[in-house]
Amino acid sequence: MKLAMVKQSGTPRLARVDAEGRRFWPVATLAPDLPQDMASLIGALAGGATLPEPSGEGEALDPAMLLAPLPNPPRNIFCVGKNYYAHAREFAGSGYDSSSTSAADAIPKAPIIFSKPFTSVSGPWDDIPLWPGIDEGVDYEAELAVVIGRGGRNIPKAEAMAHVFGYTVVNDVTARDLQGTHKQWLLGKGIDGFCPMGPWIVTADELDAHAMRVTCTVNGEKRQDAVTADLIFDIPTLIETISRSMALLPGDVIATGTPEGVGIGFKPPRFLRDGDVVECAIEGIGRIRNTLRRMGTD
Amino acid sequence: MKLAMVKQSGTPRLARVDAEGRRFWPVATLAPDLPQDMASLIGALAGGATLPEPSGEGEALDPAMLLAPLPNPPRNIFCVGKNYYAHAREFAGSGYDSSSTSAADAIPKAPIIFSKPFTSVSGPWDDIPLWPGIDEGVDYEAELAVVIGRGGRNIPKAEAMAHVFGYTVVNDVTARDLQGTHKQWLLGKGIDGFCPMGPWIVTADELDAHAMRVTCTVNGEKRQDAVTADLIFDIPTLIETISRSMALLPGDVIATGTPEGVGIGFKPPRFLRDGDVVECAIEGIGRIRNTLRRMGTD
Repeated sequence: MKLAMVKQSGTPRLARVDAEGRRFWPVATLAPDLPQDMASLIGALAGGATLPEPSGEGEALDPAMLLAPLPNPPRNIFCVGKNYYAHAREFAGSGYDSSSTSAADAIPKAPIIFSKPFTSVSGPWDDIPLWPGIDEGVDYEAELAVVIGRGGRNIPKAEAMAHVFGYTVVNDVTARDLQGTHKQWLLGKGIDGFCPMGPWIVTADELDAHAMRVTCTVNGEKRQDAVTADLIFDIPTLIETISRSMALLPGDVIATGTPEGVGIGFKPPRFLRDGDVVECAIEGIGRIRNTLRRMGTD
Repeated sequence: MKLAMVKQSGTPRLARVDAEGRRFWPVATLAPDLPQDMASLIGALAGGATLPEPSGEGEALDPAMLLAPLPNPPRNIFCVGKNYYAHAREFAGSGYDSSSTSAADAIPKAPIIFSKPFTSVSGPWDDIPLWPGIDEGVDYEAELAVVIGRGGRNIPKAEAMAHVFGYTVVNDVTARDLQGTHKQWLLGKGIDGFCPMGPWIVTADELDAHAMRVTCTVNGEKRQDAVTADLIFDIPTLIETISRSMALLPGDVIATGTPEGVGIGFKPPRFLRDGDVVECAIEGIGRIRNTLRRMGTD
């Protein structure tokens, strides 16, 4: 099942989308008694509620109608740093990595978890803003994002996948200069508009989380291409690790980390510029496409 | 003015508290048309709404009725690492500091900003949980927390104080082992119940943010004692820095960092144990007092 946020006559609406992504049925029509915001709906479905099968033709889905599927997760999105081997090495060698100081500790021994606030989340086709003064080191990171269904604390690896509601695509856009300067990554990662998400959430039953191909192109040039089987810390490990510190909640998002091929992996670095088009895609989910756009001073 | 969350007949209610902290008036009675959750009320007041002066005797305030004044900030609480000189040096020398590797870079050159989710927030007298398996390196950090009133992006230092609504006290409780192991500090800092807050919010007009005394005792023994004049990055600098990455929102909280004297400043470290009582106090605001409590396995 695909769940999306669809903008119709100016109003965002929860919608169930067909397998081809061409038609949709508003959740308010299918199931008026279920919650009408995504995080609460996910909580209800994870708790045993069911969304009726769509009947009738539904409505035509113009991709331009799609918004970020989960614009208000219950708390900052969890993100994982350096979670693919090749990317961990390219980042550690870039000069921007405040988490390691030598090639010897390039590969993390435990998951590196930071966060992006909901205010960074934007839609699958939204522009990525180049804000004045923090526009010189902007980089892309295509990632598989896990959406939590049933919450829980101290979830063991063996049970973790039962807590996954579904998956979506995010671009963990990063200002590398701020990421390095401030040591902790919130300011370089949490910038307004720096988390394009979409195009929808695909439920876990339809996908093999360990065999998804994650790709990224910039202006049509392939930059990232990997499979989630190459994650250093797999999804069950991430869920076990995070839920040891805090109970996971329905609608929590975990962006699982980005593969090799980011801009600072090149020498010299290839940062994003005004007008660049970044496309992040994951097999079985879909693609998001965002254009860099220089912002005026306020 | 003091604003609090007061539990009355089992229901949390917004309340205006008198200067002595002995009587209160429910906001629902004083101003039924204003929002009845703290973050929204702060937004309304920062936007020009006024809370009427209390009339009549109000109701007796038993301190036991006080809850965390801002249990649902709009996004994870912003926190500042190593923001007092003496503490920066004690932390860098502790072996737990993943943000510096030598005495030479003990003092940060830019604010180190990380976050704690709302799920870590607890009340001014709540127990601090010692969760199984992450209970061996738990430490206290008394801090002045700034509550944002009027939001904004790219707020210059010179205008920053006009965006401060008020202040409260937090204990930025930390699992030092997780803080070190995971490099980014979210998992060591964001643990459920690791952010006692209170006892209320005091509005900015009543305090001099640069001359507040922050103290912490453990079982009655003084551990921390400093004034906010000693902050490496003062409140205007923090507001300017954070708002460069993201628009600040009414109800955002910025915990400004902790002074020298934390448990890992001692050799050997003095971690918190079951039954220890930690009291964090700030002159002009008040005090919070929390007891460490070992939790059973789930």
